[in-house]
Amino acid sequence: MPEDKALGFNMVTCSAPVNIAVIKYWGKRDEELILPINSSLSVTLHQDQLRTTTTVACSRSFEEDRIWLNGREEDITLPRLQSCLREVRRLARKRHSDGDPAGLSHKFHICSVNNFPTAAGLASSAAGYACLVYSLARVLGVEGELSVVARQGSGSACRSMYGGFVQWTMGQREDGKDSIAQQVAPETNWPELRVLVLVVSAERKLVGSTSGMQTSVETSSLLKHRAECVVPGRMEQMIRAVKKRDFATFAELTMKDSNQFHATCLDTYPPVFYLNDVSRRIINLVHRYNRHCGETRVAYSFDAGPNAVIFTLQEHTAEFFQVGGTFFPPETNGEQFLKGLPITGVTLSEELKEAIGMEPLVKGISYIISPKAGPGPCVMEDPPQHLLCPDGLPKKNV
Amino acid sequence: MPEDKALGFNMVTCSAPVNIAVIKYWGKRDEELILPINSSLSVTLHQDQLRTTTTVACSRSFEEDRIWLNGREEDITLPRLQSCLREVRRLARKRHSDGDPAGLSHKFHICSVNNFPTAAGLASSAAGYACLVYSLARVLGVEGELSVVARQGSGSACRSMYGGFVQWTMGQREDGKDSIAQQVAPETNWPELRVLVLVVSAERKLVGSTSGMQTSVETSSLLKHRAECVVPGRMEQMIRAVKKRDFATFAELTMKDSNQFHATCLDTYPPVFYLNDVSRRIINLVHRYNRHCGETRVAYSFDAGPNAVIFTLQEHTAEFFQVGGTFFPPETNGEQFLKGLPITGVTLSEELKEAIGMEPLVKGISYIISPKAGPGPCVMEDPPQHLLCPDGLPKKNV
Repeated sequence: MPEDKALGFNMVTCSAPVNIAVIKYWGKRDEELILPINSSLSVTLHQDQLRTTTTVACSRSFEEDRIWLNGREEDITLPRLQSCLREVRRLARKRHSDGDPAGLSHKFHICSVNNFPTAAGLASSAAGYACLVYSLARVLGVEGELSVVARQGSGSACRSMYGGFVQWTMGQREDGKDSIAQQVAPETNWPELRVLVLVVSAERKLVGSTSGMQTSVETSSLLKHRAECVVPGRMEQMIRAVKKRDFATFAELTMKDSNQFHATCLDTYPPVFYLNDVSRRIINLVHRYNRHCGETRVAYSFDAGPNAVIFTLQEHTAEFFQVGGTFFPPETNGEQFLKGLPITGVTLSEELKEAIGMEPLVKGISYIISPKAGPGPCVMEDPPQHLLCPDGLPKKNV
Repeated sequence: MPEDKALGFNMVTCSAPVNIAVIKYWGKRDEELILPINSSLSVTLHQDQLRTTTTVACSRSFEEDRIWLNGREEDITLPRLQSCLREVRRLARKRHSDGDPAGLSHKFHICSVNNFPTAAGLASSAAGYACLVYSLARVLGVEGELSVVARQGSGSACRSMYGGFVQWTMGQREDGKDSIAQQVAPETNWPELRVLVLVVSAERKLVGSTSGMQTSVETSSLLKHRAECVVPGRMEQMIRAVKKRDFATFAELTMKDSNQFHATCLDTYPPVFYLNDVSRRIINLVHRYNRHCGETRVAYSFDAGPNAVIFTLQEHTAEFFQVGGTFFPPETNGEQFLKGLPITGVTLSEELKEAIGMEPLVKGISYIISPKAGPGPCVMEDPPQHLLCPDGLPKKNV
C-alpha cells in the first residue's frame, strides 16, 4: 500500500492474466452473485504476452469513483463494477474494524488497459476484473480470499486470481461464499506445456456470453445434464491429469469439454453459434494430426468465439506450428502472423501433409500468439508504469 | 402380382417417397437389426417431385439375384440388401405355407432409380429401401407389416412405408419385431403444410450417417440423455401437435430437435459436423424472420448434411420463398433455382429486410425444391414405366 500521507493519495499498479478454461463454465444458478451451475478448470496464461494492467488511485481529493478502460472513460455505475468496489470496501472495513483505514472513505480513480485486442476474444473481462479487484485490494491493504469478489465482476475472473492450473469450485451456498477459485498446481509443475492461440478471422460475435449462457440455462436440457452428470467426473479426471502431467488425458478431456460446451450452445433455443467453418477445419486438422502421429499430441479448446486455443508440449510445438502455417497460410509475411513463437526450420513430411489432406485456406487464421502457463496477478513495483498521473487522471499515452 | 405363368415371369414397378424426420433418429441399439435408441417421427414428402422408382422382376430363368441402382449394377451381397431379400422371402414362405408360391424359389432382378441427385442429401436410402421392400413384397404377394423389413435395409426407410406423418416406435424387444413404423395422421389431415428443401452448395460429406451415429452412441453422453430423457416427451408432444395441426408447436419442436441432434454430433468424439456456415445463416434467418413476424411461421430441420428442410404453411410460403431468394440470391436465373414453386409477386418490406439484417450471400443455396406431404409407396400400374425389359435387363435409358 504505497501511500503519500501528505496528499492522502495512494496509488498502485497491478497486472493480471488471461485464463483459458479446459473444463468450461457455462450457465449461472444466480445471475447477480454469478454462481455457476458447474465447477470449471483453467490454465492461466503468462502475462508476458497477454495481460491487463490497472492503476488504482485513492485520494481524499477525488469527488467520485471514476474508471477509464483502454483510454476511454466508462460508466462506473455498471452493476458488476459496483459489486467489486462494494465488496473490496466491505473487506477493508472488516479488516480494519479497529479504525478507519487510510482511503476507505476516499474515492477511486481506476485506469485499465489490455495489451491485446478485445476482438481477439480472449476473455478480456476475466483479466480485467481480476486486475481491478487485485489492485483495489492492494490499495486498501486487503488480503486473503479475493476470488469471490472477482467472481462478482465476471465469473471466469475468479480463475485469473491465481497462476498455473486453477479450479473454480461451484459451491453450494446461496450467498456464494464457497464458490471460489483455488490453485490446483502452479505453472512450474508443467513447464513443457505450451499454448497457441490461433486468432481466426471472423465476423462480429452475434450473441455475447452473458446472454448466451442465460438462454442456455433456460432452454437446454443437455446443459442441465452436462452440469449435473458430466462435469463432476471430468473435474476429478482433469485435476488428476494436471497433477500427473498426463498430456493425453488432459488433451482429450479438453477437446471433449470444448465440444460439449458448444453442443449445449447448439441445443439452446434459439441456438447460439460460436464456432465457424474455420474453427471446424482446425478441429478436423487437430484430429487428423493426432491420428497420423498415433498419439494425442495436440488439443483444441474454443470459448465463446471462433478462435482456437491449442495445447501441446514443447517438443511438438514447432511441428504443429508448421502444420498450422501450411494449412492456414498467412496472406503476406510470416512475421506479422507469428507473435512470440521462435521460427524453426521444421519441414513437414509429404506423408503428414497427405494424412491431413486438407486444402490450404489462406487468411483463415489472422495470427498466432504463443504463451506458456504463467503466474497470477502481481503488483508492478516500478512507479513509471502507473497509468494515472499524480493528479489522478490518465496519462496522455494511455 | 402381375404374372405371366407361361414365362414364369413376374414384374412389378413401384415408387416410394422420401421422408424428413422432425424428431430425429440418431443411434442404434442393435447394428444388425437396425434398432434405434429412440423413437422418431417424420413427414413423408410427395412423390411428384422426389421419389425412388423400382422394378422387380422374378423369373425361373434368372440365375442369380441382381440389382442395378441409378444405371449401374451394384453388389447384391451387401448385407443390408440381403436382409431385405431374406426377410421378404421369409414372409412369403410364411404366407404361402400351404404351398410354394409362384416365384419364391426364383431369383430377382431389381432396377431402381431416384429422380433426385443423391448429392442433395435427401435420405435416398430411405426411399430406396422402402421401394425395394414394397416392390419385393408385391411381386411375391406378401401383405401386412413390411416396415420391420424396410428398417433392416435402412432405419429411416421404415418411415417411408407410409404417407403423411409417421412415427417409428423404437420398440423394446431384442428381435426388433415391435420396432415398427405407423401412420400418425395421413397427409390429407394437414393440407396447408408446405416444405421447402434448400439445397446448400457444399463440400462432400466427411462422415456418413452410419459411422457417425455409431461413434455418437459410443462417445456422447448427451446422446444417451437425449434418447432416454428428452425424446419420449417430444414424441408425445409432436404427435399431439400433428393431430391438432398446431403449427407453432410442431415448428418449435422440429427446430429444437434438429438442433439437439446436431448438438449430439458435436458432443461425439471426434466431433461430427453436418451444418456449415450457410446452414447456420439459414437458422439465424428463420429465427429473425419469426421474431419479426411475432409468431413461429417457419421451421428448419437439418439431417446429416448442410441442406435445410423448411416447414411452413401455404399462406406464408410465397413470402418466405422471397426471403430466401433475397438473402441467398441465385447466381444467374431464378428458374434454375426454383423447382416446382409458383413464382408470386411478393415483395419484401424494407422493415422486414432490416429486421433480418443479413448480407445477401450469392450462391449459398443452389436450388429449392418445394414438395408437400404425400402418400406412401404405390404400385405404378402403367406397364411402360417398368425399368426392366422383358429379358430382365435394364432398359437402355435407365
